Amino acid sequence: MSSLTLHPMKEIKIIINGEHLSFVTEVLDRIKASGYTIFSSLSGKGHSGFHEGHLMFNDESSLQMVLTVVPEDKVEPILSGLKPFLERHSGSLFVSDVGVLRKGHFESAES
Amino acid sequence: MSSLTLHPMKEIKIIINGEHLSFVTEVLDRIKASGYTIFSSLSGKGHSGFHEGHLMFNDESSLQMVLTVVPEDKVEPILSGLKPFLERHSGSLFVSDVGVLRKGHFESAES
Amino acid sequence: MSSLTLHPMKEIKIIINGEHLSFVTEVLDRIKASGYTIFSSLSGKGHSGFHEGHLMFNDESSLQMVLTVVPEDKVEPILSGLKPFLERHSGSLFVSDVGVLRKGHFESAES
Repeated sequence: MSSLTLHPMKEIKIIINGEHLSFVTEVLDRIKASGYTIFSSLSGKGHSGFHEGHLMFNDESSLQMVLTVVPEDKVEPILSGLKPFLERHSGSLFVSDVGVLRKGHFESAES
Repeated sequence: MSSLTLHPMKEIKIIINGEHLSFVTEVLDRIKASGYTIFSSLSGKGHSGFHEGHLMFNDESSLQMVLTVVPEDKVEPILSGLKPFLERHSGSLFVSDVGVLRKGHFESAES
Repeated sequence: MSSLTLHPMKEIKIIINGEHLSFVTEVLDRIKASGYTIFSSLSGKGHSGFHEGHLMFNDESSLQMVLTVVPEDKVEPILSGLKPFLERHSGSLFVSDVGVLRKGHFESAES
């Protein structure tokens, strides 16, 4: 029963042009986010007009979303690392509350 | 420090058959949602059975998800615009809380 | 007006290797989740290294995300059904709060 406890974490979703993907994942790696999932070939409309996802080619120019789930104390370092980037490029970042089963999977051994 | 404040917004996810995508985006445009992201070629199971995503062709007949983030005061107009549609067609709509860094990006100049 | 009331539900996102997709959907079917949406060809980095999404072939070996929305009383049975699996395989599960317009669509007639 208590093994089904959900532990509070923060979900961060970052939507960017594919060409900037490695910048985002490098920030997550540096702050030791335990992992992330990448959604490719998205399309959308934002401040800089409509973007078409290209399913087969040119993935770099389509929109991608990076989803990561981290303990609350990693949110501020991740935002600090990404904010200057988001001010210079189009992109969006959303933070929300989630619960996870296995708390240890989202905490890195190193601080 | 205070520049990392997260401003509360509402995330709306709308899952529909691809053929109805433009109806949804027209509602979002009319209510001046600042932007949206489209996830294509989804598959799934709902009230009307299993839908297969077709990666290469027939995108119009696969499921798609539209994700938008808006200030709370735009939620009701968007729901009002989409509810009659969702009552006639299969589709789902989920609303959740998110925080964003750049509040101004989600508010349109026009009311 | 009151017809725009949002009813609280739980959103569950499960990210797994594509080869395990049917295990997850069978648990959801057994617990009578009203539906789910599958996001394919994801890539990502987690406890077992980097996974590449393969857009055209080998979908079974890429990451997939299953998204379902259920009433709160179905969360524990779904977690119970999936937890032993998640302890043996790589995968992640996140639970969050969402609101939905049509409560009845997420409740099954059978208990």
